[in-house]
Amino acid sequence: MRMAGEKSGKEALPVRQLKIITETLQRNTKGAGDLIDVTSSLHELLRKSGLNEGSMIVFVIGSTASITTFEYEGGLIQDMRELYERIAPSGRRYKHDDTWNDDNGFSHVRAALQGPSVTVPFSGSKLLLGTWQQVVLAEFDIRARDRKIVIQLMGQ
Amino acid sequence: MRMAGEKSGKEALPVRQLKIITETLQRNTKGAGDLIDVTSSLHELLRKSGLNEGSMIVFVIGSTASITTFEYEGGLIQDMRELYERIAPSGRRYKHDDTWNDDNGFSHVRAALQGPSVTVPFSGSKLLLGTWQQVVLAEFDIRARDRKIVIQLMGQ
Amino acid sequence: MRMAGEKSGKEALPVRQLKIITETLQRNTKGAGDLIDVTSSLHELLRKSGLNEGSMIVFVIGSTASITTFEYEGGLIQDMRELYERIAPSGRRYKHDDTWNDDNGFSHVRAALQGPSVTVPFSGSKLLLGTWQQVVLAEFDIRARDRKIVIQLMGQ
Repeated sequence: MRMAGEKSGKEALPVRQLKIITETLQRNTKGAGDLIDVTSSLHELLRKSGLNEGSMIVFVIGSTASITTFEYEGGLIQDMRELYERIAPSGRRYKHDDTWNDDNGFSHVRAALQGPSVTVPFSGSKLLLGTWQQVVLAEFDIRARDRKIVIQLMGQ
Repeated sequence: MRMAGEKSGKEALPVRQLKIITETLQRNTKGAGDLIDVTSSLHELLRKSGLNEGSMIVFVIGSTASITTFEYEGGLIQDMRELYERIAPSGRRYKHDDTWNDDNGFSHVRAALQGPSVTVPFSGSKLLLGTWQQVVLAEFDIRARDRKIVIQLMGQ
Repeated sequence: MRMAGEKSGKEALPVRQLKIITETLQRNTKGAGDLIDVTSSLHELLRKSGLNEGSMIVFVIGSTASITTFEYEGGLIQDMRELYERIAPSGRRYKHDDTWNDDNGFSHVRAALQGPSVTVPFSGSKLLLGTWQQVVLAEFDIRARDRKIVIQLMGQ
């Protein structure tokens, strides 16, 4: 017989329960070429979650922005802008511009190539990023935007 | 003493159990430049899963196709084709072509640069995509292909 | 009443418990253009984990390397090097080079564009990669590096 107060099924489980936490990070951007380091907010969200081991998805909603990782310093920020300009020049006419009578065709193709998200693993309650590896929101749109970045942690 | 019918260990668990569901999506493509919107199938798979919160991996099997997100409309579809053509021209001779006496070297390098997958978080039983942000299978191979896309949902 | 030896809460759970396993793979690279196939190590880590269904994150720590998938054969390895050279020429002067009086600006922009990680789903204890689709560490830095790749499995 099992007495009240004895170990129940819950305590018998050998591993910790996995949890999912979904948060939104908001950033006001200044338009094309605005590259924003969000790493410190990610560290803060991980700390508040109390999670030790798992992964964090950083996903920007929308089709004219992107998430990537690079060493966030002034010289490289300019180099990244020049890379995007070489790959998809802003001065060129894009067919997308005719669809909406807009001028952000270059923004869309840059975002599609680089992709909307990065997944960063964590362990020992630390994001496993390099010292010089920051998580960066890349704004490609031609105007200032109010960006929503979904941060989803899955772990224990 | 615990009586039959009383709450057991299962109900005592404070959080819902995480589930993994792995599905395959099949698409027949028409070869290089065929860009196929798979978003509605992803919404349907999420709905059928009954999951509320978690993430969905969309991963294309093979080395001459890719998954990305962009606004799926006719003008931008052409812009994306032109972007791929500028980055890795199809008219150029690639060393890979000599390996197999084939002509799809350009397909491989495009796929490798853009990457095979996208991970999309969901919450409130909705994929957290923007209104103009579709999930797209990019076919880069020179011939029609029968593509398998792995859709894996992890969540609660 | 429940007797000792009867099914407890643990057995009553209908699904298997999800597990997270975080490992590090170490690779010594030879500097820019070194492309290293890590797929067999990934198969081995999955096998040792005993997991059947879930996903594996392959994430390289640092800002001058990247992870992608392609068909790992000699011709394509050269084609990939030429693609990277066209996108971000190594002979060009980058502003990042002035920041640290270094010469690896091109390494950083290549890594940022391609991204630090790939997530590969698995099922039936097999990574769901194509036959000709290998997971490759791309070294972009100008010197030999001791690389740490985080491999995180989440599954059941």
